[in-house]
Amino acid sequence: MNMFRIRLGISYDGTGYGGFQIQDNAPTIQGELEKALAVIYKQPLRITGAGRTDAGVHALGQAAHYDAPFEIPSSRLPAALNALLPEDIVVFKAEPAAPDFHARFSALRKIYSYTLDRAAYPQVMRRRYSCHLPGPFNQDAVREACRLLEGTHDFRAFQATGSPVQYTERTLYRVELVELAGEKLLRLIFEGDGFLYKMVRLMVGSLLRVGQGKLEPAAVSSALEGRRPGAVGPTAPPQGLCLEKVIY
Amino acid sequence: MNMFRIRLGISYDGTGYGGFQIQDNAPTIQGELEKALAVIYKQPLRITGAGRTDAGVHALGQAAHYDAPFEIPSSRLPAALNALLPEDIVVFKAEPAAPDFHARFSALRKIYSYTLDRAAYPQVMRRRYSCHLPGPFNQDAVREACRLLEGTHDFRAFQATGSPVQYTERTLYRVELVELAGEKLLRLIFEGDGFLYKMVRLMVGSLLRVGQGKLEPAAVSSALEGRRPGAVGPTAPPQGLCLEKVIY
Repeated sequence: MNMFRIRLGISYDGTGYGGFQIQDNAPTIQGELEKALAVIYKQPLRITGAGRTDAGVHALGQAAHYDAPFEIPSSRLPAALNALLPEDIVVFKAEPAAPDFHARFSALRKIYSYTLDRAAYPQVMRRRYSCHLPGPFNQDAVREACRLLEGTHDFRAFQATGSPVQYTERTLYRVELVELAGEKLLRLIFEGDGFLYKMVRLMVGSLLRVGQGKLEPAAVSSALEGRRPGAVGPTAPPQGLCLEKVIY
Repeated sequence: MNMFRIRLGISYDGTGYGGFQIQDNAPTIQGELEKALAVIYKQPLRITGAGRTDAGVHALGQAAHYDAPFEIPSSRLPAALNALLPEDIVVFKAEPAAPDFHARFSALRKIYSYTLDRAAYPQVMRRRYSCHLPGPFNQDAVREACRLLEGTHDFRAFQATGSPVQYTERTLYRVELVELAGEKLLRLIFEGDGFLYKMVRLMVGSLLRVGQGKLEPAAVSSALEGRRPGAVGPTAPPQGLCLEKVIY
């Protein structure tokens, strides 16, 4: 039987979901997408995402693929899917992919962002998509720690305990702190060839402590070398995190 | 008995509320604020808002006043109130006001914004705070219509039918269309000495039709002169509207 591999670009507000990956206890992004695809193709289909975002984490550029049993012009798929999906999940792109394209294994890089609300009181329209962090914050110290995270390191220290991954070397091409002009927002950007489970939120946890003066920037290097486990985390709250882009 | 008049600055995500003004059928901003004040002052208090935003309309700079039966340092009030309020209502300012200050009658000007999401597919993080309007949109024509709305006019045509207001002359100091740099967003800004019931959303409805080429910019003037009722509205959806600021 001929199969047509389709690649999707997906954005979502993760607030109301138990994460990307399908599970029994909560609605999921994957679950909603598969429900919509089942209506369109009149049979159950399985999709594979580029990465499994956690409960409450957002995406502006998640990617996924699935094998369609028959051809539907891909230019029509986003509108057809969006008409069936809840409003907080939006498919913005669909295109035919090579049979050996794999949303997860073909990904070269991913970009995550983590947004901080620096206003004295939470900004109501940013509340769902940022972590509120008022008070003193040393941006220079955070930038210094960001530079120490960049490059190829064993990020074992920055993965959630009990994670199953054995090979823990990753390369971060970019770790950057940017100020969003005209808004009381700061954003941390992480671009890397891969990320361990909860790695971004654990790095953010460390960087926020650096910003608050509770940790020296150099402690991040010690943590990477496995010498200071206490310099890792805590896991930053999910709502500030967003999967910005998957690069193939 | 001594009374202490307090002026509040309030922001809210209006999505889950039946509007500012207290009512029986839905949670309201006023209702939540009065509940929180009752806890702090241990007695029921009434607040007066600068304006009654409708169900689903947001505010970044709503204002209100109330009379406190005893003094609490106003610098402590925002944190105390925010601890009691739902997360989508934030008090960002509290300060003592003169006994004759009145949130509604002392207001000199108000600024409203209306945000349009111009991306091909809705932007998930803007969805709650904008109206999605893809497709051709003639910004020049809208700007021409904006200029025609500026100034002192009888805005009778731009009020919801059945409104009780008799005096319908208002002055709009600024009606402007701005592009939000780097984002696929457009924003209409309205600054005026007062607004009739649903006036902003009816003007937005007309301006969107101008942008879509369904109405000539000059039709706005005809509507103001009462000659073309068909050139008014429809009422634009509430979620794009935000009370930005009340000027005293």
